[in-house]
Amino acid sequence: MTERSVGYVETKHHHLKELFRLVNGDELAGVSIAYETYGKLNSDKSNVILICHALTGDAHAAGWHEGDKKPGWWDIVIGPGKAFDTNKYFVICSNVLGGCKGTTGPASTNPQSGLPYGLSFPRITIEDMVNLQYKLLKNLGISSLYAIAGGSMGGMQVLQWTVSYPDFMKKAIVLASTAISSPQQIAFNEVARQAIIRDPYWNDGDYYGGELPKQGLSLARMIGHITYLSDDSMHDKFGRDTRENEMFQVESYLHHQGDTFTSRFDPNSYLYLTGAVDNFDLSNGFSLAKSFSNIESEFMIISVSSDWLYPSYQSEEIVQALGSNDINVQYRKLISHFGHDAFLLEKGQLNYLLSTFLGHLTVGDVMSEDVSTLREGCTLEEAAQLMILNNATHIPILAASGRITGIVTSWDITRAVANKISSIEKILSRDILTSHPDESLSNAALIMEDNAISALPVVDDRGCLVGILSSDTISAMVGRGAK
Amino acid sequence: MTERSVGYVETKHHHLKELFRLVNGDELAGVSIAYETYGKLNSDKSNVILICHALTGDAHAAGWHEGDKKPGWWDIVIGPGKAFDTNKYFVICSNVLGGCKGTTGPASTNPQSGLPYGLSFPRITIEDMVNLQYKLLKNLGISSLYAIAGGSMGGMQVLQWTVSYPDFMKKAIVLASTAISSPQQIAFNEVARQAIIRDPYWNDGDYYGGELPKQGLSLARMIGHITYLSDDSMHDKFGRDTRENEMFQVESYLHHQGDTFTSRFDPNSYLYLTGAVDNFDLSNGFSLAKSFSNIESEFMIISVSSDWLYPSYQSEEIVQALGSNDINVQYRKLISHFGHDAFLLEKGQLNYLLSTFLGHLTVGDVMSEDVSTLREGCTLEEAAQLMILNNATHIPILAASGRITGIVTSWDITRAVANKISSIEKILSRDILTSHPDESLSNAALIMEDNAISALPVVDDRGCLVGILSSDTISAMVGRGAK
Repeated sequence: MTERSVGYVETKHHHLKELFRLVNGDELAGVSIAYETYGKLNSDKSNVILICHALTGDAHAAGWHEGDKKPGWWDIVIGPGKAFDTNKYFVICSNVLGGCKGTTGPASTNPQSGLPYGLSFPRITIEDMVNLQYKLLKNLGISSLYAIAGGSMGGMQVLQWTVSYPDFMKKAIVLASTAISSPQQIAFNEVARQAIIRDPYWNDGDYYGGELPKQGLSLARMIGHITYLSDDSMHDKFGRDTRENEMFQVESYLHHQGDTFTSRFDPNSYLYLTGAVDNFDLSNGFSLAKSFSNIESEFMIISVSSDWLYPSYQSEEIVQALGSNDINVQYRKLISHFGHDAFLLEKGQLNYLLSTFLGHLTVGDVMSEDVSTLREGCTLEEAAQLMILNNATHIPILAASGRITGIVTSWDITRAVANKISSIEKILSRDILTSHPDESLSNAALIMEDNAISALPVVDDRGCLVGILSSDTISAMVGRGAK
Repeated sequence: MTERSVGYVETKHHHLKELFRLVNGDELAGVSIAYETYGKLNSDKSNVILICHALTGDAHAAGWHEGDKKPGWWDIVIGPGKAFDTNKYFVICSNVLGGCKGTTGPASTNPQSGLPYGLSFPRITIEDMVNLQYKLLKNLGISSLYAIAGGSMGGMQVLQWTVSYPDFMKKAIVLASTAISSPQQIAFNEVARQAIIRDPYWNDGDYYGGELPKQGLSLARMIGHITYLSDDSMHDKFGRDTRENEMFQVESYLHHQGDTFTSRFDPNSYLYLTGAVDNFDLSNGFSLAKSFSNIESEFMIISVSSDWLYPSYQSEEIVQALGSNDINVQYRKLISHFGHDAFLLEKGQLNYLLSTFLGHLTVGDVMSEDVSTLREGCTLEEAAQLMILNNATHIPILAASGRITGIVTSWDITRAVANKISSIEKILSRDILTSHPDESLSNAALIMEDNAISALPVVDDRGCLVGILSSDTISAMVGRGAK
């Protein structure tokens, strides 16, 4: 356990007293919801962040349970000083309806029969999952969210939340997800389901207390795992290496993943949850833009460059539909070769992107105000001397009015020397990009990256220099986020 | 049946008298090979083309068997006037070793026991398949090939042929294939195999005469089918449409494909053949370029833009390794959204590419020699009149020497009129691209495509005009190929 962990945590259970009504009209009695919380609720309850988990996730998003060999599934971004900073935010994660990690699902006991539901469990949707989370929050006395975030099936829940309860949250973060399940996604889910259904031990879902359909469930998980990785990451991770038993490494890996999964997941849950994913279509077969018309929250949409299961075009469809409703949306693509799994793995990029979006950091928040400057007409030697003295690689040149008229860098000095130029006027970069204190930090970072420059002078509305933003500063922040 | 079909055909069977020795030293007795031939062997036996089939293909590549509802698997390119023109070529296709369509495989009777081999069938490789094809050809009195072609696993056989028997063929065509199976390809094959192996009826491969492991085999095929299509083509083909039974169309399609497959394929064959595919690594874990160093044939490598199972980078690796050995190689990418299956479907593009490569058509073969030209100094009216008279959209302008100095098009005339320009000199395109009669037709076509021009003057070594190549001519050829 590291310093930046939320430490030991326990899963809590909330029992609904009332009947829970599904979108299709069915009602479930005695519904139980497993959830965990990290951080402290502030006095005006304005610091709540809800985390939604993916297909086989659970309420244990961060920290450690007694005996854990690894922390919760999104520990890389939840904890003190991390993106979902538990020093600032009160973070909640609950297991979804239909799951098998403490929330009512097909493996739960049907209070009417006293037996496990099995296939008598009603068909559920992403909307039902979200409605149950809403109940939980209400019962915990929480009536608004600062933010909501989730990847993959978690991202679907986030989207559904912002449509179903548009005034409930300020910020929404969707990672590696889609608003409309594609036929290819349905196809992969269907073969996984068939693997379970065709296992003779499945017995029409009535296997509780007997032999489990482990072979089928393990096969379903193997299929899933192929889709979570990229071709490229498989080359890196396994190549064509073989093991002692003559199996290729990639085969051993899949077998291992499949086998361990069977001890922690209910086969019927797999059927119900993938069914909910397949039926997810926020466009209602019509228009995503129309479905998004009531959304009030601000969005960050994140896709993964190498994710072929939830390809970037699906994120871009969401961005497009949000944008057409004038909803404030930022879109970022994780540059990663990890494939779909990147949203669980890319610690540095995720902490940077998420904390920037959550904190809405501006250039003014992080720029250095202690800038060495020179006046127009200074000499080359003066510039070089100031650089050395203050260990500054970029010196803005100001007019008498305080307006920035140029910038001189150590590279310019080098160039001048190489070309035997003695006047600073001749080497000065005058075509300079600047930033503004109110500009979002992520935008400024993008401009620097796009233009391959390492520092950006920050000017006020009158064009006067008020600070400087350097890539070193940003890099250090990412470093802090990533550590 | 169309005019351009090879008509009714029958599968023939060749029985090896000698023992067949595998690369691993094992020997098989009483090996039988199923094959078909189309067209006529010429007197010097120089017109033979061998076609190699993919994973679940067979010897029936073209024409019709009595009762067939559709023709052989590559009928779109084999037949009179098609790319593998049976008026010119003698085409052979045989079922692979380890298959289940007439060639000895795990479902065949082991002559020693009188029982089906099942898992006692030896492990085979792509090299073994090729060695058996070689035996067949030798026994048919054929000691060289004009060309060899195959897609997917068929492409692997083509590559192995050119390495194992480098002086046996003139031309080799590899479609949608790889020289080295990737971990992702192995992964998909492994889950397909596990689907079969985990079917209780599989019974360690000893199911002959009893219940077949149909559920597992069908599931394996469903997995395969997802990988043969592209995300894009699935959107087009199925979208999120549902059927009466509430299944998504894509689910019904996969179920149908899986079910029909079980009546035509042996589960153990699926295990053996995918094993051979997985173990295929022509680089021997070292260098593909080195493995290709003895190759003598000329190559055409074709990938598919939307094929994610055998992505284009795998074809490009082959092109690179061939090129580094100074082997004549042409690389083309089919622009198709059909995914891997495109090599079985893209009739027009395939007929054009394959026939161009096989015929090695040059610009001189197809250019029009009957070109309307004008002398330098002619008037705008003369040019326009000649165009109308001869229905020509491009008129080369020649110097007295016969050298081409410019070209005038109907577009130029239009431009002159629009701008009230009366002199032809002012509108003439002088910066013209030309071709040479010996240039390959496909190269010239690419130049026209890249430069968005519809006609290319053809000049001899002295720069004198000898003909004109127009996109209409090429288009008509593709049309003929594609019809």
